[in-house]
Amino acid sequence: MLPISLLPQIEQGDFRSLARAITLVENGFPGYEDLLAALTRRSGVKIIGITGPPGAGKSTLTDGIIRYLLGEGSKVAVLCVDPSSPFNLGAVLGDRIRMSEWYTHPKVFIRSLATRGAMGGLHPKIIEISELVKSAGFDYILVETVGVGQSEVEIAGLADTTAVVLVPEAGDEVQTMKAGLMEIADVFVVNKADRPGADRFVRHLQQMLAPAFQRHQRQLPILKTVAATGEGLPELVKVLQHTAEADNGSERHLWLLAEKAWHLVQQARMRNLPRETVLAQLKKAVAKPDFNLYRFAQSLTA
Amino acid sequence: MLPISLLPQIEQGDFRSLARAITLVENGFPGYEDLLAALTRRSGVKIIGITGPPGAGKSTLTDGIIRYLLGEGSKVAVLCVDPSSPFNLGAVLGDRIRMSEWYTHPKVFIRSLATRGAMGGLHPKIIEISELVKSAGFDYILVETVGVGQSEVEIAGLADTTAVVLVPEAGDEVQTMKAGLMEIADVFVVNKADRPGADRFVRHLQQMLAPAFQRHQRQLPILKTVAATGEGLPELVKVLQHTAEADNGSERHLWLLAEKAWHLVQQARMRNLPRETVLAQLKKAVAKPDFNLYRFAQSLTA
Repeated sequence: MLPISLLPQIEQGDFRSLARAITLVENGFPGYEDLLAALTRRSGVKIIGITGPPGAGKSTLTDGIIRYLLGEGSKVAVLCVDPSSPFNLGAVLGDRIRMSEWYTHPKVFIRSLATRGAMGGLHPKIIEISELVKSAGFDYILVETVGVGQSEVEIAGLADTTAVVLVPEAGDEVQTMKAGLMEIADVFVVNKADRPGADRFVRHLQQMLAPAFQRHQRQLPILKTVAATGEGLPELVKVLQHTAEADNGSERHLWLLAEKAWHLVQQARMRNLPRETVLAQLKKAVAKPDFNLYRFAQSLTA
Repeated sequence: MLPISLLPQIEQGDFRSLARAITLVENGFPGYEDLLAALTRRSGVKIIGITGPPGAGKSTLTDGIIRYLLGEGSKVAVLCVDPSSPFNLGAVLGDRIRMSEWYTHPKVFIRSLATRGAMGGLHPKIIEISELVKSAGFDYILVETVGVGQSEVEIAGLADTTAVVLVPEAGDEVQTMKAGLMEIADVFVVNKADRPGADRFVRHLQQMLAPAFQRHQRQLPILKTVAATGEGLPELVKVLQHTAEADNGSERHLWLLAEKAWHLVQQARMRNLPRETVLAQLKKAVAKPDFNLYRFAQSLTA
């Protein structure tokens, strides 16, 4: 069976065909490129990124966002990016169980993607997979990442709008918070905002962000939510819908697309040079007394 | 003047020539490739990575390590990787001032490198620059990164051994610490260990790391230091020297080299396709009704 034969069903919104096609793309099954090249790009699909440190309540929040969007009559796809790290396995499994009620819902498609590299990053084929999902007739694609490694930074290059989720307890932590996390946010969410210190934390965040506000000449929205009760969720969804929409067709949106294209080219150009091949050739080269790393790389560049 | 004409002075250890060559490599000055390809690889130079969250005292620690290595008669180069982020500027400047006493020392070479991309990463030419520095006759190259964005993860691909520096106050934070940071460590340093809770924090860290210990079948050393007084520094330096040495010529060391070569090839292959070019072509392509991102990328791949 050729992957491209799945195209009609995918574009009609058949979940099983979509799931199967994602697997074929993930595994680089022969012919998957033809499927990707044949996709009709649907406009108006919004990719919403949700990231933040473990324990911030991202999955409960995603859960609430799914419910809200369904209530509006939307069709929602969720891509959960799990780092394949032994440190997070427990948390990740717990999170997923919370979302399980959607697994059989006819308007919700959920797919977990394990990052392959040890150091995270979203997923080597996340761009291709999101294009595939886009073509399947969803209104929204939620991409949730456990905030570890690079994935939290890369999400900004994938999503049309990115929410960074924090909790009031992060108060002192924010001082030392990664600049990366601060810079990718289109929206800040202070979740579990019924806990003590929430307002103080919001003020603290505003102060922290003041220099960035000046630089970007815009105010980043900071929203309070209690994901467990749904408090603040309608406001959050509206802001996400707005921030995703505002950038459509804009210079920033084009940059986002250009970055994606650039990464696809990079992948294609490196496909014929797996790291194992480099290692095998290196083993021979490094034994020579005049070994030079740069020259060795040049010999592989052709 | 051709960059390669600096080679004799660099290999004789002339700091001005080395500094100039780094600038030429940074800027991609015509002919810099010839210089890199002509370098004689010196064996035995150890690259020590020092990373961790802001405020952990990395610069004071680096300062102490420099002093200790000089006492042993070594020649030391320090590469400070500064994210060009508005959030960190103050801290970074403060750090650098602490190290200023070394700027005129004849056996210490210090160079700050600003990361160019918004999201960090070590530096687009850090591999080339470290090869250049290696050839200048140093015994040690310390690479210090402010732990933001990707740089803290990428350092593990550059250094022969990597120290992750934490403080006792990080106690609760470690729960939510990035798995990436945990996985790149060859050595953990609990700095400011004269503060309350240091021992409790070390035990906590040991518990956290237990699953990783099992997986790697080795114990990661956890060392306590008080960088400000020099306490624990001799022990730390010995462990760093040992962990860097143990891996020389090993499978892991080869992988490290192979990764570096792979990244150099990647850079070379993408050099003719700047992101701006992609953007310019995309602007035309995206206007067509049958625009397909994957096909667009294919058209650029040739």
